[in-house]
Amino acid sequence: MTLKIGVIGTGAIGRDHIRRVTKSLAGAEIIAVTDVNQQAAEAVIKEFKLNATLYKDDVDLIQDSRIEAVFITSWGQAHESSVLKAIEAKKFVFCEKPLATTAEGCMRIVEAEMAYGNPLVQVGFMRRYDSGYKKLKEAIDQNTIGEPLLMHCAHRNANVAERYSTDMAIHDTLIHEIDVLRWLINDDYVSAQVFYPRKTKHALPHLKDPQMVMLETESGVMINVEIFVNCTYGYDIQCEIVGEEGLLRLPDEAHVQVRKGGQIGKEIGMDWQERFAHAYDVEVQDFIDNVLDKGTVSGPTAWDGYIAAVTADACVKAQISGVKETIELAQCPDFYKKEKPAAKVVY
Amino acid sequence: MTLKIGVIGTGAIGRDHIRRVTKSLAGAEIIAVTDVNQQAAEAVIKEFKLNATLYKDDVDLIQDSRIEAVFITSWGQAHESSVLKAIEAKKFVFCEKPLATTAEGCMRIVEAEMAYGNPLVQVGFMRRYDSGYKKLKEAIDQNTIGEPLLMHCAHRNANVAERYSTDMAIHDTLIHEIDVLRWLINDDYVSAQVFYPRKTKHALPHLKDPQMVMLETESGVMINVEIFVNCTYGYDIQCEIVGEEGLLRLPDEAHVQVRKGGQIGKEIGMDWQERFAHAYDVEVQDFIDNVLDKGTVSGPTAWDGYIAAVTADACVKAQISGVKETIELAQCPDFYKKEKPAAKVVY
Amino acid sequence: MTLKIGVIGTGAIGRDHIRRVTKSLAGAEIIAVTDVNQQAAEAVIKEFKLNATLYKDDVDLIQDSRIEAVFITSWGQAHESSVLKAIEAKKFVFCEKPLATTAEGCMRIVEAEMAYGNPLVQVGFMRRYDSGYKKLKEAIDQNTIGEPLLMHCAHRNANVAERYSTDMAIHDTLIHEIDVLRWLINDDYVSAQVFYPRKTKHALPHLKDPQMVMLETESGVMINVEIFVNCTYGYDIQCEIVGEEGLLRLPDEAHVQVRKGGQIGKEIGMDWQERFAHAYDVEVQDFIDNVLDKGTVSGPTAWDGYIAAVTADACVKAQISGVKETIELAQCPDFYKKEKPAAKVVY
Amino acid sequence: MTLKIGVIGTGAIGRDHIRRVTKSLAGAEIIAVTDVNQQAAEAVIKEFKLNATLYKDDVDLIQDSRIEAVFITSWGQAHESSVLKAIEAKKFVFCEKPLATTAEGCMRIVEAEMAYGNPLVQVGFMRRYDSGYKKLKEAIDQNTIGEPLLMHCAHRNANVAERYSTDMAIHDTLIHEIDVLRWLINDDYVSAQVFYPRKTKHALPHLKDPQMVMLETESGVMINVEIFVNCTYGYDIQCEIVGEEGLLRLPDEAHVQVRKGGQIGKEIGMDWQERFAHAYDVEVQDFIDNVLDKGTVSGPTAWDGYIAAVTADACVKAQISGVKETIELAQCPDFYKKEKPAAKVVY
Repeated sequence: MTLKIGVIGTGAIGRDHIRRVTKSLAGAEIIAVTDVNQQAAEAVIKEFKLNATLYKDDVDLIQDSRIEAVFITSWGQAHESSVLKAIEAKKFVFCEKPLATTAEGCMRIVEAEMAYGNPLVQVGFMRRYDSGYKKLKEAIDQNTIGEPLLMHCAHRNANVAERYSTDMAIHDTLIHEIDVLRWLINDDYVSAQVFYPRKTKHALPHLKDPQMVMLETESGVMINVEIFVNCTYGYDIQCEIVGEEGLLRLPDEAHVQVRKGGQIGKEIGMDWQERFAHAYDVEVQDFIDNVLDKGTVSGPTAWDGYIAAVTADACVKAQISGVKETIELAQCPDFYKKEKPAAKVVY
Repeated sequence: MTLKIGVIGTGAIGRDHIRRVTKSLAGAEIIAVTDVNQQAAEAVIKEFKLNATLYKDDVDLIQDSRIEAVFITSWGQAHESSVLKAIEAKKFVFCEKPLATTAEGCMRIVEAEMAYGNPLVQVGFMRRYDSGYKKLKEAIDQNTIGEPLLMHCAHRNANVAERYSTDMAIHDTLIHEIDVLRWLINDDYVSAQVFYPRKTKHALPHLKDPQMVMLETESGVMINVEIFVNCTYGYDIQCEIVGEEGLLRLPDEAHVQVRKGGQIGKEIGMDWQERFAHAYDVEVQDFIDNVLDKGTVSGPTAWDGYIAAVTADACVKAQISGVKETIELAQCPDFYKKEKPAAKVVY
Repeated sequence: MTLKIGVIGTGAIGRDHIRRVTKSLAGAEIIAVTDVNQQAAEAVIKEFKLNATLYKDDVDLIQDSRIEAVFITSWGQAHESSVLKAIEAKKFVFCEKPLATTAEGCMRIVEAEMAYGNPLVQVGFMRRYDSGYKKLKEAIDQNTIGEPLLMHCAHRNANVAERYSTDMAIHDTLIHEIDVLRWLINDDYVSAQVFYPRKTKHALPHLKDPQMVMLETESGVMINVEIFVNCTYGYDIQCEIVGEEGLLRLPDEAHVQVRKGGQIGKEIGMDWQERFAHAYDVEVQDFIDNVLDKGTVSGPTAWDGYIAAVTADACVKAQISGVKETIELAQCPDFYKKEKPAAKVVY
Repeated sequence: MTLKIGVIGTGAIGRDHIRRVTKSLAGAEIIAVTDVNQQAAEAVIKEFKLNATLYKDDVDLIQDSRIEAVFITSWGQAHESSVLKAIEAKKFVFCEKPLATTAEGCMRIVEAEMAYGNPLVQVGFMRRYDSGYKKLKEAIDQNTIGEPLLMHCAHRNANVAERYSTDMAIHDTLIHEIDVLRWLINDDYVSAQVFYPRKTKHALPHLKDPQMVMLETESGVMINVEIFVNCTYGYDIQCEIVGEEGLLRLPDEAHVQVRKGGQIGKEIGMDWQERFAHAYDVEVQDFIDNVLDKGTVSGPTAWDGYIAAVTADACVKAQISGVKETIELAQCPDFYKKEKPAAKVVY
């Protein structure tokens, strides 16, 4: 039993998922691809020796009746339309972030999925599959530190390309924290505020870097996230949760300790793809397994994609206004409600 | 050659400094004490077998012509008056925080000291003598991480007594960060804002706990300090400085690693006095050495005491107003100006 | 293109490899299985919904002309015979340790493989695929610490089953260090000695536990390995290499840091399968990829299996004799010679 | 009340203790010094502005009736004679290691002290006063890890002077482990063996470096100590104790964490004096306090000095013989017996 997948978009992330499915994971096969750049798509077919049809666009690909699941890895602007077509065709969807570029677009997907009546869509927030974050989540759900009160986070890149703009700090960078932090603490955001510390000399004139985002949740948890995309020293993801009974800290990656020349040191990676390589594998394998074995999807939902969009919008607004912006979410439909874990006290 | 010290105030901290001078440090002797509670003062004389005169008040004690230095460890309200008297009598002063309970009071001391013409007063901000903070300072002054941009700090106590009130989070707790952080980065504050995260169930009704204070400096460094005085798990002081070229983190204390029962653990102290015990020793020995060997004082000055007072006032104002409060400092007199360290680039 | 695999032995490790190939890895399919316990083999077929033929024994399975690679995961006594049959049938072989239960048996396999003329056999020493060991190897090969001089290692299990005997400390436990340590430093052993420290009360009467094994290599590196299989606190693998210019230490696993109740702690796993789960995946994927893409095998060879057998024999002899036992290896045939990495000096 | 001290030997360590007593510690005064190099002694008097008599030799100094305690910091050959004279004169003695250069010499001191009838002599094994070792001792005495079974230790110096010889690895380096390890586990040694790993290129021809010493204790604890005095990278002291219920590890020193240039690092000191600076202070203050307040000495006894001498002799013998050498100690006199701590089970 092999899951038949069609891939819409064969750019960097599309190609990487094709490699993953073909060379690293079990149970799936890429049988069709499409890209606005047809030559690029063809090159990927060759590179991985895929036995795959090259379609001229997403419409044609989705119509291929052999296809059971669609990977949407085109550029963000195109996501909504492809997702809606896939839902209409009753295909399972793995859609990279963003689900849609607007909250309204996300809501249209939510409604389409609910109209269909069963979960079809998983959004590509891979951090939920990182072993560190999973262990944080587990510890919180087991009530290890009691009720969360504060979170201190940092998202640092060694550097970014010239095209990286101030709002991309929200849409491309913070977006991962937006999804994973509320998931960690089973909570939703109510406001966002953005602060600009002294700017690093390593940032180009058009870019505000670093930035400090402060998010508040319904239950009053206060979250600060440092975004620093020209920190020079490495790709560094920090997450600390302060609760009523203690504190949890996301571990640094395990690296060999070196004692040399008056220093005890270990490497810190420079590359986000390496940092989350295993999370990507687990994420996509989980998608394949759920579809194959249970005929459903798990993981981040269209609703999660909607919340990310609304929150990101408020953050961008806060970047401009300089004041605290309210985050107003629609009521979560029963369709998307997950039971909160029954907290059990663990010492 | 022994420094002759008179101690005003023999409560907890006064008694501890007497013990320190008598049992741990070189070069000084307690020859006089006074306290509003004369019996308490007498008990301390006995406890440490001091060869010391018991005076009825600070006026009498300061007049004792044998006394070269005065330790002011009475309650905060009494500090200003005793410091001014000691300056008038040309005695060296080691004054526990606060130097005075108002910015104006501190300024009166500043003016008295300048009128005298030479440094006489050291304020008891002991963190500058902690080996971790000293190494942070050294690294910053050597330009290890380039210009500082952000600081993430936490000041956590396991718990506090019932009398601890919301504003004490500033005057008794944050006050240490107020002094040490600007010292670390050779900068001054321009604004303060206070945020209230979800409250811990371990705090009494009258106390807001935790709190998050955000300070900005002249050069734009943004500092967040979590104050959490009922964190339950230990006395935990965190300080992280993010600069243009890297990051520095205050070390946790060195404790034995234990591997047992599925855990790798080490102790975290519950007690601030233990955490900074060595810093206190170094601080007071430094005071003694400077007075004895060089006839002057080093360390935190009356001006530092003034800045702490102004900043703390702004923070308390910000606790109440909920908005960003400006911190307006008088111009630093040449008398108190320290040369900034010449940054040398070090990799 | 899918690699067709037959599995000989569907016990714990066989079943786990079947699960791995079927549910986690890309590019291979289990099309045949056999086990002395035919019912067990049948159960595994059902569990993983394999489309696989159940053979009555290894002879029949190996004869299946569709099969390109054979996994030998039967009990150790049966390995040699199956490997030899598979080589005769020109099938690729992934053989769990031991390659054979005697050095002579291993040598027969070596000779059979050389007679065939191309590499067919990979031995299941998975530690070479663990990311920590790989980074140690990389650092050594890059000359990060100069020439290795000493290694301090520990192999600790929380506890072992009653049937675990003193010599199993060599054959089942030390065997992993025997392979991975010489691989790390590109060296071979010349002697072994075993010491018995005070015995833990948690070991049964028939078992000597802990033990300390001291190995010396051709170039004079001295290695001590503590074997402690009832250490109670966790599954803990330590490896430290002391070189002329510095020291390398295998990292502990990355686990969430918890600050709670006066302790800073993190979990240490109890389970070796979890500790090396990812290494197993990488190992078997590497076998599949090499066979599929390059028509060969990489990783631990039959010669490595031979050396492990000779070294283990010397260690068991040393367990009994109490003195230093010489390890005499045959000359390594050119067929198995690997070029030593060209050391480049890296600071 | 001030303890009057005479110092015999004003070389490096003598000068350092004089500085310590004069500039860092409470309760003592150096009132007399002597040294075979009288000019050196005079220089030290000037440097620290001591109000001290310069004596021509130890005989004269010890006769000074004002002197209550004698610090013996001359070269090792002269220790025994000075200690015996001091005991005869009923002075308290703080003697740097070695107590005497032979076991017989130590025994003569033991007998002299017992003849006097009360403890007079403390030997300068400062590690017992290091906070890390003290916490290890505390944990062991509280039964945190059950009965000790194994110890893994390392004593590494960045480099040594040309005059450092192979046997100094025992007398000057291992000697600290010899004292502190048996103290940690309340046990005595029964045998020693020395191994020579591959030699580092950084050692001079006459020096064997590194060395591995294996010690066994009465209760069967097996201890390996790596001595590596040209490790180049720093001064690094490691100590790990493996017990029936878990493991303890001496902490590395607390140093600022730096994240920079792809590395997470912290300094490791190069200097043993810095590493144990605080331990020296605590040690000598403890000597002063005990003599002043209780009229006795605590800390390492003459008997401990005797055991160190016997053990070191066996180790040097083992360096030459290459085989396991027995360590035969005289029966410990009641005079020196300490009660073993009552183990209490602590989780």
